[in-house]
Amino acid sequence: MTNETIRIPEIPYADDSLALHTDKYQINMTQVYWKDQIHERQAVFEVYFRKIPFQNGYAVFAGLERVIRYLHEFRFSDRDLAFLREDGYSEDYLEYLGSLRFTGTIRSMKEGELVFANEPIMRIEAPLAEAQIIETAILNIVNYQTLIATKASRIKQVVGQETTMEFGTRRAQEMDAAIWGTRAAYLAGFDATSNMRAGKLFGIPTAGTHAHAMIQAYRDEYTAFKKYAQTHTDCVFLVDTYDTLRSGVPTAIQVAQEFGDRIHFKGIRLDSGDLAYLSKEARKMLDQAGFADTKIYASNDLDEQTILNLKAQGAKIDVWGVGTKLITAYDQPALGAVYKLISIEDENGKMVDTIKISSNPEKISTPGRKRVFRIINKTNGKSEGDYIALEDEEPQTQDCLKMFHPVHTYIAKFVTDFEAKELHHTILEHGELVYQLPSLQDIQAFVRENLEVLWDEYKRLLNPAEYPVNLSQRCWDNKMERIDEIQQKVKRRSQG
Amino acid sequence: MTNETIRIPEIPYADDSLALHTDKYQINMTQVYWKDQIHERQAVFEVYFRKIPFQNGYAVFAGLERVIRYLHEFRFSDRDLAFLREDGYSEDYLEYLGSLRFTGTIRSMKEGELVFANEPIMRIEAPLAEAQIIETAILNIVNYQTLIATKASRIKQVVGQETTMEFGTRRAQEMDAAIWGTRAAYLAGFDATSNMRAGKLFGIPTAGTHAHAMIQAYRDEYTAFKKYAQTHTDCVFLVDTYDTLRSGVPTAIQVAQEFGDRIHFKGIRLDSGDLAYLSKEARKMLDQAGFADTKIYASNDLDEQTILNLKAQGAKIDVWGVGTKLITAYDQPALGAVYKLISIEDENGKMVDTIKISSNPEKISTPGRKRVFRIINKTNGKSEGDYIALEDEEPQTQDCLKMFHPVHTYIAKFVTDFEAKELHHTILEHGELVYQLPSLQDIQAFVRENLEVLWDEYKRLLNPAEYPVNLSQRCWDNKMERIDEIQQKVKRRSQG
Repeated sequence: MTNETIRIPEIPYADDSLALHTDKYQINMTQVYWKDQIHERQAVFEVYFRKIPFQNGYAVFAGLERVIRYLHEFRFSDRDLAFLREDGYSEDYLEYLGSLRFTGTIRSMKEGELVFANEPIMRIEAPLAEAQIIETAILNIVNYQTLIATKASRIKQVVGQETTMEFGTRRAQEMDAAIWGTRAAYLAGFDATSNMRAGKLFGIPTAGTHAHAMIQAYRDEYTAFKKYAQTHTDCVFLVDTYDTLRSGVPTAIQVAQEFGDRIHFKGIRLDSGDLAYLSKEARKMLDQAGFADTKIYASNDLDEQTILNLKAQGAKIDVWGVGTKLITAYDQPALGAVYKLISIEDENGKMVDTIKISSNPEKISTPGRKRVFRIINKTNGKSEGDYIALEDEEPQTQDCLKMFHPVHTYIAKFVTDFEAKELHHTILEHGELVYQLPSLQDIQAFVRENLEVLWDEYKRLLNPAEYPVNLSQRCWDNKMERIDEIQQKVKRRSQG
Repeated sequence: MTNETIRIPEIPYADDSLALHTDKYQINMTQVYWKDQIHERQAVFEVYFRKIPFQNGYAVFAGLERVIRYLHEFRFSDRDLAFLREDGYSEDYLEYLGSLRFTGTIRSMKEGELVFANEPIMRIEAPLAEAQIIETAILNIVNYQTLIATKASRIKQVVGQETTMEFGTRRAQEMDAAIWGTRAAYLAGFDATSNMRAGKLFGIPTAGTHAHAMIQAYRDEYTAFKKYAQTHTDCVFLVDTYDTLRSGVPTAIQVAQEFGDRIHFKGIRLDSGDLAYLSKEARKMLDQAGFADTKIYASNDLDEQTILNLKAQGAKIDVWGVGTKLITAYDQPALGAVYKLISIEDENGKMVDTIKISSNPEKISTPGRKRVFRIINKTNGKSEGDYIALEDEEPQTQDCLKMFHPVHTYIAKFVTDFEAKELHHTILEHGELVYQLPSLQDIQAFVRENLEVLWDEYKRLLNPAEYPVNLSQRCWDNKMERIDEIQQKVKRRSQG
């Protein structure tokens, strides 16, 4: 049978910009703003989530650098506009979209900051049209990286000082997830990744030796390990292709003995079976053969729970390879950060605060431009909680701060002798970058420092204490006034 | 405060190829093959998964077109090689990698084919090095799209003929997941997406009108709806910003009445609250106002279970917007397809079958080049099961086929009067495309046809019957012989 070669069909509109990585309603709303000539009114949006993922005590914010690069490159390409034309949008609107750039100001937490429910992570202040159209991509970026950084941090809490590697590419939710998830894991404390493209793009250390396929290709463990040792000095042999303790480990030891100083017998890797039992037995065999420094690597559907249990059983594992459960955030694969309009310029050029009401009370937004402070006890250096104030408040200068529970408002405490550390930094100012992007290594160190400020009870994997996030009295009163205003309006409306 | 503009740091190695979207061990194993000069031996790998996701009765295969495009463009860029050089790989190996192209042959199921556990979806036959290095990306692509197509098909089973839209971009696991997940959902029967970039790249119909932000921007539903109606003819008003039944729905009706024939009042959208109750009340209000054709759109964390329950309660919903739960495959966010070496050329140029043993019996691979047939009963046109045979078997010409359970082998049935439909097609032959890529619309139709051949008991959401996937007697015997061979070897090894 001879088959004729067939050409791969061309994609009508090649993928040359991310400006259309947005929901259609953003394009349609923006068209309304533009037609009504309110598209240049200043609008203020906030990014926040309502619940910390995995029932963890904190989340680790990640994704800011990608957001900055996205905004920096934001423009509709000719192909984007051609597609929109075909979709029926008018020429004058397309001309306007073609000229659109991001010219706004962004205040944000730094990547690696610990963040809690219902506090603004980022604040976007820009002409309404610009701020609207970027919503979808910003949430897409921040939701995923923050989710994975938080999951990785949970795993790291259990692993402690041991080495942890990200191995999940094949099970990731497509390619971007593999690389950006790896980045998030690394900044939260992981040591390396198997993904070479993540190594290339982000400078993350890469790791990996061989798979079962190599053993199968040689149909013999002894030959396969020997061939590997002839090519690579650093050797981690995968020992479970046929039988871990009866074949894999003894063969690895035999080859290491034969090669002596010519190789560095770094480790063996276990990828199936009972990792507690196998690691303890393998440890004995390695020690008896004089390979006390040879490490035991383990992988196979690991997450913080399995690692905790393996450790409790005294497993002799030195290096943890974590794949599927981390890269997909298996037990909670989505973070629900939202992007809410909190203030907008009115027809007289005055900023007015806005709110979204919902029948679910936790979904009601908090209006007005706000600042977030971490209240740090000067005596012990630990944080007492976060404090959300209106833009013009200065809690740093107060001697005594009243902090009250945002739901059970009768629960209040007074804090003295504190430092109020402001968590937002100006990142973009009128579209220009005014923030020095830290390296990934710097972010990793920043996460470690932040975790030291947090009491241990917020770092527990299971049922951590709830970290206090409080509104200032004025912020609270402002919210209540806006709710009342809307309720009056709805009442008038329903009374005809 | 005037801040100075800061330049965005350049990425050392720009993202110009997907060749490094692989695990480091692939690069290291390939180096062993190349150094040992076995890199051009023919190797045969198969892609399959061991468990259907979501406890569904079938999976929908998706991802083939992306795999083809990836292989077609596969080459290490100069930047890839520069990165590998920095990582310590030798010049002669880099030169070899630089020359690497995919020249192999691929037999695969078509996209949209229904696929079951433990049957080969794709078969990759290529020089060992080529087949090895592409493993990670192929699994990354196939796992995600197949997962989402299967989830979408489950949702579609419940929704029936009603319109279903994909709304999940903001919660997707980064950007690729948003667009490739949408593609998978569409081919499995979804009608549209909110993601404009997916519309641009794949020609998927796009949908969306406005969000709560537009109401907040005008601080008034009446004004906001009116402004929308002045800009767009097709109107779907979001009615839950303040109070659905007391404000949103009456205001939408009022604006529709005022605009009359100038707009098409297509629908209202509910995004919070009790969707069953609200949709029934809203339906009454719309009908009473003479808008019987105006549809009710619903969104808010929907999946097949919530849709089933809403329908059971008589919710009056015409259009379903599905986001997070679909795009992340929330209840099982990873499919575990694997890529296993099943046959390899030996030192004498002869193909020999290979196997991987595991202490988990379900993880033992099935050696040898195989074909997959769907056994269709000629009397009723329904499929009796799938039949996996060795390459040179011809079940089509048999009068009576013995099918036996692959685990409980004593359970057997004999099938007569059947048609054996071969599921694999040659896609690439020696690196050349010999397969006409179908359009997404064709794939959608193909999925529908395939589902008609399947008995209803396999399509049930909860506890579907297990579809039979059987090995031929020879395929089974071959597997048992290889297992025996390995066990003898391990025994000899452990006896010293």
